[in-house]
Amino acid sequence: MTATRTETDSMGAIQVPADRYWGAQTQRSIEHFPIGTARFRWQRPMIRALGVLKRAAAEANAELGELPGELAALIVRAADEVIEGRLDEHFPLVVFQTGSGTQSNMNANEVIANRAIELAGGVPGSKAPVHPNDHVNRGQSSNDTFPTAMHIAVVEQLHARLFPAVGALRNTLAERAARFADVVKTGRTHLQDATPVTLGQEIGAWVSQFDFGLAAVRAALAGLHELAIGGTAVGTGLNAHPRFGDTAAARIAALTGQPFASAPDKFFALAAHDALVQTSAALRTLAGGLMKMANDVCWLASGPRCGIGELAIPENEPGSSIMPGKVNPTQCEALTMVCVQVFGNDAAVAFAGTQGNFQLNVYKPVMAHNVLESIELLADACTAFEHHCARGIEPVREKIAANLAANLMLVTALNRHIGYDRAAAIAKQAHKEGLTLREAALASGFVSAEDYERWVVPAEMTTNRA
Amino acid sequence: MTATRTETDSMGAIQVPADRYWGAQTQRSIEHFPIGTARFRWQRPMIRALGVLKRAAAEANAELGELPGELAALIVRAADEVIEGRLDEHFPLVVFQTGSGTQSNMNANEVIANRAIELAGGVPGSKAPVHPNDHVNRGQSSNDTFPTAMHIAVVEQLHARLFPAVGALRNTLAERAARFADVVKTGRTHLQDATPVTLGQEIGAWVSQFDFGLAAVRAALAGLHELAIGGTAVGTGLNAHPRFGDTAAARIAALTGQPFASAPDKFFALAAHDALVQTSAALRTLAGGLMKMANDVCWLASGPRCGIGELAIPENEPGSSIMPGKVNPTQCEALTMVCVQVFGNDAAVAFAGTQGNFQLNVYKPVMAHNVLESIELLADACTAFEHHCARGIEPVREKIAANLAANLMLVTALNRHIGYDRAAAIAKQAHKEGLTLREAALASGFVSAEDYERWVVPAEMTTNRA
Amino acid sequence: MTATRTETDSMGAIQVPADRYWGAQTQRSIEHFPIGTARFRWQRPMIRALGVLKRAAAEANAELGELPGELAALIVRAADEVIEGRLDEHFPLVVFQTGSGTQSNMNANEVIANRAIELAGGVPGSKAPVHPNDHVNRGQSSNDTFPTAMHIAVVEQLHARLFPAVGALRNTLAERAARFADVVKTGRTHLQDATPVTLGQEIGAWVSQFDFGLAAVRAALAGLHELAIGGTAVGTGLNAHPRFGDTAAARIAALTGQPFASAPDKFFALAAHDALVQTSAALRTLAGGLMKMANDVCWLASGPRCGIGELAIPENEPGSSIMPGKVNPTQCEALTMVCVQVFGNDAAVAFAGTQGNFQLNVYKPVMAHNVLESIELLADACTAFEHHCARGIEPVREKIAANLAANLMLVTALNRHIGYDRAAAIAKQAHKEGLTLREAALASGFVSAEDYERWVVPAEMTTNRA
Amino acid sequence: MTATRTETDSMGAIQVPADRYWGAQTQRSIEHFPIGTARFRWQRPMIRALGVLKRAAAEANAELGELPGELAALIVRAADEVIEGRLDEHFPLVVFQTGSGTQSNMNANEVIANRAIELAGGVPGSKAPVHPNDHVNRGQSSNDTFPTAMHIAVVEQLHARLFPAVGALRNTLAERAARFADVVKTGRTHLQDATPVTLGQEIGAWVSQFDFGLAAVRAALAGLHELAIGGTAVGTGLNAHPRFGDTAAARIAALTGQPFASAPDKFFALAAHDALVQTSAALRTLAGGLMKMANDVCWLASGPRCGIGELAIPENEPGSSIMPGKVNPTQCEALTMVCVQVFGNDAAVAFAGTQGNFQLNVYKPVMAHNVLESIELLADACTAFEHHCARGIEPVREKIAANLAANLMLVTALNRHIGYDRAAAIAKQAHKEGLTLREAALASGFVSAEDYERWVVPAEMTTNRA
Repeated sequence: MTATRTETDSMGAIQVPADRYWGAQTQRSIEHFPIGTARFRWQRPMIRALGVLKRAAAEANAELGELPGELAALIVRAADEVIEGRLDEHFPLVVFQTGSGTQSNMNANEVIANRAIELAGGVPGSKAPVHPNDHVNRGQSSNDTFPTAMHIAVVEQLHARLFPAVGALRNTLAERAARFADVVKTGRTHLQDATPVTLGQEIGAWVSQFDFGLAAVRAALAGLHELAIGGTAVGTGLNAHPRFGDTAAARIAALTGQPFASAPDKFFALAAHDALVQTSAALRTLAGGLMKMANDVCWLASGPRCGIGELAIPENEPGSSIMPGKVNPTQCEALTMVCVQVFGNDAAVAFAGTQGNFQLNVYKPVMAHNVLESIELLADACTAFEHHCARGIEPVREKIAANLAANLMLVTALNRHIGYDRAAAIAKQAHKEGLTLREAALASGFVSAEDYERWVVPAEMTTNRA
Repeated sequence: MTATRTETDSMGAIQVPADRYWGAQTQRSIEHFPIGTARFRWQRPMIRALGVLKRAAAEANAELGELPGELAALIVRAADEVIEGRLDEHFPLVVFQTGSGTQSNMNANEVIANRAIELAGGVPGSKAPVHPNDHVNRGQSSNDTFPTAMHIAVVEQLHARLFPAVGALRNTLAERAARFADVVKTGRTHLQDATPVTLGQEIGAWVSQFDFGLAAVRAALAGLHELAIGGTAVGTGLNAHPRFGDTAAARIAALTGQPFASAPDKFFALAAHDALVQTSAALRTLAGGLMKMANDVCWLASGPRCGIGELAIPENEPGSSIMPGKVNPTQCEALTMVCVQVFGNDAAVAFAGTQGNFQLNVYKPVMAHNVLESIELLADACTAFEHHCARGIEPVREKIAANLAANLMLVTALNRHIGYDRAAAIAKQAHKEGLTLREAALASGFVSAEDYERWVVPAEMTTNRA
Repeated sequence: MTATRTETDSMGAIQVPADRYWGAQTQRSIEHFPIGTARFRWQRPMIRALGVLKRAAAEANAELGELPGELAALIVRAADEVIEGRLDEHFPLVVFQTGSGTQSNMNANEVIANRAIELAGGVPGSKAPVHPNDHVNRGQSSNDTFPTAMHIAVVEQLHARLFPAVGALRNTLAERAARFADVVKTGRTHLQDATPVTLGQEIGAWVSQFDFGLAAVRAALAGLHELAIGGTAVGTGLNAHPRFGDTAAARIAALTGQPFASAPDKFFALAAHDALVQTSAALRTLAGGLMKMANDVCWLASGPRCGIGELAIPENEPGSSIMPGKVNPTQCEALTMVCVQVFGNDAAVAFAGTQGNFQLNVYKPVMAHNVLESIELLADACTAFEHHCARGIEPVREKIAANLAANLMLVTALNRHIGYDRAAAIAKQAHKEGLTLREAALASGFVSAEDYERWVVPAEMTTNRA
Repeated sequence: MTATRTETDSMGAIQVPADRYWGAQTQRSIEHFPIGTARFRWQRPMIRALGVLKRAAAEANAELGELPGELAALIVRAADEVIEGRLDEHFPLVVFQTGSGTQSNMNANEVIANRAIELAGGVPGSKAPVHPNDHVNRGQSSNDTFPTAMHIAVVEQLHARLFPAVGALRNTLAERAARFADVVKTGRTHLQDATPVTLGQEIGAWVSQFDFGLAAVRAALAGLHELAIGGTAVGTGLNAHPRFGDTAAARIAALTGQPFASAPDKFFALAAHDALVQTSAALRTLAGGLMKMANDVCWLASGPRCGIGELAIPENEPGSSIMPGKVNPTQCEALTMVCVQVFGNDAAVAFAGTQGNFQLNVYKPVMAHNVLESIELLADACTAFEHHCARGIEPVREKIAANLAANLMLVTALNRHIGYDRAAAIAKQAHKEGLTLREAALASGFVSAEDYERWVVPAEMTTNRA
């Protein structure tokens, strides 16, 4: 049987494990919300963000004369341990709790208070010399701290995980595009053979699409940089020093190196989380682009003999437990599965974002969770895809050449010389009788062999630059 | 300038066009809700359903002694005109109005009352001898009539439009499956060549998927057959005769030929519309199956020379304004666009379905609209696809044969004879060196020419029935 | 029977109505895609955009020497009629057609060609002197024209409809916020009584949320300003003059007054429509904010006697067909229904946006349609809400005062003086025994009557500015 | 440094941890798919289902003479350990892997083979006497085993978790409904006061809605009971005994006690997972009902003094870190957050369900994961809600009585006696002048005091049964 100690809150006394820093409110949450406990405990990003926030708040309160320097110093020391991940096991709560995140805010208050008390040589649970509400939570409410921590966590994860991972994939593909800039191949529209492109152009379009998606995510940062801190319970800032929001936000900016600032309208900052909604939407846009690319790779690598077969991708694992020698585009599949998950996560975020009432939206934890998960999954999947697929993409030159040679849509080069209607007749004739385009063109009487050689030059069809 | 007459309601007097039967409340709705007027007016199905409901209600009230026979007879005559579509121009309201559909219920009450008054030689707007509330709406509230009309309209449209249209497509494909039961071809998993199937099996899987989707939609009918009528304002049935719900539902069943009945819990029938949510979900499942089929058709018909090219589909229109002779799988595209629209409509329905409060869900019109639109679009698109694509699907036998001959996954037939590992080595060797499977198998030393002929028989690989 | 004339395309001859300018390809589309015809015909914005595009293309081709001046002049005259809406009845096609919008592009080409031929005294259908492909579609493909028209239509509608309508609502609410800046009232978090706010702050949070949503939509304009024109069939610009894209985009900018430019990567511009996806997402964010506001208004106006009842809103229509004198928040309901529709439309757009393959996304029409519909519905609903609800919002001062007086959360003002734990005990005591907060505070022994008057001042609790 | 041993597959040799049973393919997956590893490892339900499947397959193969009895016995022993959870640490793979689940199928094959080898005294990795492919996977492919395991896991979790948990909540609320059947209270439609209902009716509507949702989930079982097993690689059953599917399904039925059977169309069973899509949709419908209930509870318990305040719910935790004594409806919030998560999960499932190609849908793992997660979260949240909220719901009788007495919509009882128009005038008069309904009714002259007492009896207004 685990040893316990007594902790108290306004509901009364409760037993908590003796070797944990958390207090009464955290313990109540554990007991009341055993929901998805195996998978939905808060992870590093939110715990770290709460640590950053509590340290910044203590520093701000000290600076503004709201907290004695020695208490602030104790809080800062304990908060630093939270920031560094040394107290993660003292954060047992899950996403599905009170919708304001109050219990996680109190978890941070309790752990930091008890750890600070310990550092000061006091008795855990005594709330002296450091009180979780009166000192650690000084000038704060869950209603402004939790969304502040949400923004910190998301911004940090975007910079730490998403941008590097997607950027690396983008760069690898840009390198592939440059490398294969001269590989002329069949273009395809409606899945039907179309006029030629280069493989560089084809891959380059994926890069442009990633750039668009990344720019959309970056555009969402502006909203994320605005912090609720200073709004306290309902946005009025009641019980906080008038300059607390600005001061704490500046401290957070200093601690994270990100341009956080106090939100201009704290009432909006508590009542809605549209910055997260927009971030989630931008992640969805990015996921859409990744999905399109992954599908293109799958199809271009389809075969090896009965598909398009124009790309070779790394063979990483046996593909089938029954079909010997089969190799599948598994990185594409993992990535596209991540993309549909991101779509699902976004649906949850956007729905949750609509459901605020009056001064508070009480879907904060589920919104933060889904955005953070989408970031993590996209980053992980892009990293895996870059390592195990993208960098090994190679053209299958013979198949590309054979397809290009067979492609009737080279006929489009004739439009300018003999008009759309005659060109169409030639293409249809070739299709119907199984002729090459050249054969049909010459048979039409409108194109001489010399004309054909001069007019139908696939590589020239891939650019209209003189 | 249009001639007007004066109509009144509890808000006072208002001018309405003299040549329209609607009254004051309809007119107010026109003026207050000019939202999407070009596209969101209620169409035939809902207008007809309101007519059915109002006729049934009048008959039930007469039978129960709640309404004098001669008034009921007048109402029935006017309602019949609504049912038949002769008064559609008198239903000007749009989806985006009050969330209970009150204004459309009153539109029906007003039009029927005024038309009945006219039939009786009275003065429109006089509310005598037929009053829109006291007589046409007798024993009813918008809160029970509008959801009743929603169910009637959806059930009727499922039977009139969806089941025939999807059923016809299903049957055409079943016929194609039977016709091509002997065409052995390359199977594909992960877009990679796999062991053989017949074209009949491939098409048959689409048919099975449609059957699953249709069964899901049919399973939703049970919920739709339960009608809110009799619940009046909040579910208690206040102001309705105790047997009004059952009697009116029986009349509706008789008028429509569908097994409608009074809902066992009227409070639920007003406060939520989960029968519509489930119907929408089932339409989504069906749309998912249609989308999978349409994508398969697109890909199997891709090419004509640089794709899979195993299916030929009808060439209906010039495919490109710039590439002469190009033919695209346009029916597939129209159908898949309809499918994503159905997914979007379903998202709206499910969201709306969660937002009821207490005794009423006030998203009724938008839910009904989206379900009806999904039915219409699926029916229209399946009909077009059946006519202009499905019935003309043909195998491209040479391409199918060539692909099958090249398919290395025929190696799977060797597993049982030489084991998975040796079979894998043979397939890999063939792939690496560009050999045929037969060449690699013989070169391995584990398979004789005779063995190969006996063991590797594609047609036999398409069935494990002895 | 309608008189017809013969039109031809690469598929052969076909009869079209004699009094319509459209040609063979439009006619084929009418016959092959009878899907949602009552509601899904393209409306003004897309038709106008096609006209703008075709005029700009003719001007650019003339400037670049690709088209004789007299032909260009004829095309410009015909295109102007399209722009002005004089030829709308010649655009019969629906959304659900080929996924590239080819048929609508050809519809524009055919109508403009035939009208130009007529202006030149020629024979409609003769393709002389103006050919729909060789002249009107000169240097263009559906694959670049249709997405160009999509962007033009969406940008124009945002400016013409969305920004003014939402802006007007925003301004009206901002005026209400300023007008009621001194009305101190109960704040609410978790739907539970919380510390006070002013009505101005409460309404102001809605305004801030709209501003955020509008900024998100405006941020999406950058992507929309990039046009596919110049990419032709697959992005290479084949068959277009090298400077055609830039020149045509400049003309479009001049014709619309919007900063359109040629997209830097045409391959991306054809293969994906992430600018529309992001626009749709931003509209969804905006809709989320509108929904939150409308729900707040509903609840604050709930009652009149058994709800919160702190706001009075205009009484526009009788609310119930059975409950006399009932008045409902119908504008809120219409608006929230529009919001869920926008969510549904967005789901369709985002799904469609993922489904491109290689050089083309063939869900263009359904994406354009849903974005345009969302714009229209939001604009219409905001206009109606502004007229018939927002401008008439008034506080119910007696109810607000009574609620505020009863609110136990004024206790929060005591935290700083007696600490959180004692303050909590006072509030709990008051709640348990039905006391006023003042009574319980004084009974606690920690607060004197003088203290209470000095410390608990609701109006001061609404600001932490000194 | 961890000790390792060498394992091999068709790709060659690879080192695996010496103390783990998994083999080469599992190891490759670990290395290639480090995606969401902290949260997306497969949990008990899927691992158990794979164990059930592998045991059933071994038994079926032995019965059909496809596998020597002693090998089958070894496999059964090892599979039993998987079933019982004793080998969970040997299942390290995550959701985001190959889309067929091949690697998890091979994980099961490898672990069972190596554990069986160990039981036989052999050398792990030697594949003798038990080979992971030739014996454990005998007659199987990932393409049929993984979807079979998906169905087993989902069906088992529905029975083990969802039905009991939601059922318990349903029963508790049904008990509350019966207990409060006589509490007459204000009904509310459009959030506006409406005619009376009993609290029993109000709560009963939630119960009916749960019953509808549960019935929808139960209806989805039919599709889940059909198993892909026997289809092997592409649906043809190649390499499986003709009776393998039926025999294995019968064994699975016996092992689980659920009516599983072999799917009639194996091609459909591999190529699409509409049974999961429908299950997910039904879970979404159920979640919609739970959300509506939780929102109703929140609002009915809103206050305590400035809201509706008609219900008291258990006070479980301090509600605010800043507002002393505040108690929030936290169980409602956790449950509604779970509901939006279920909506998001469903969006992912439905999207994934559309993306199959030809003979395989390669989104199997993400579909299974989301359905299982939704089941778990709904079960957990309903259990918590039942324990910590539902069973403690109590009416606040004084508030209910006061609200009812003030409710003007009691006027509806007058309709039948004095007509809608006069009744409306009375209600409007009362509202305008702040009168009670009785005062206004008597002042109207149409209702005597005696009439009023006889006609306006709230309890009688809650039923229309004579």
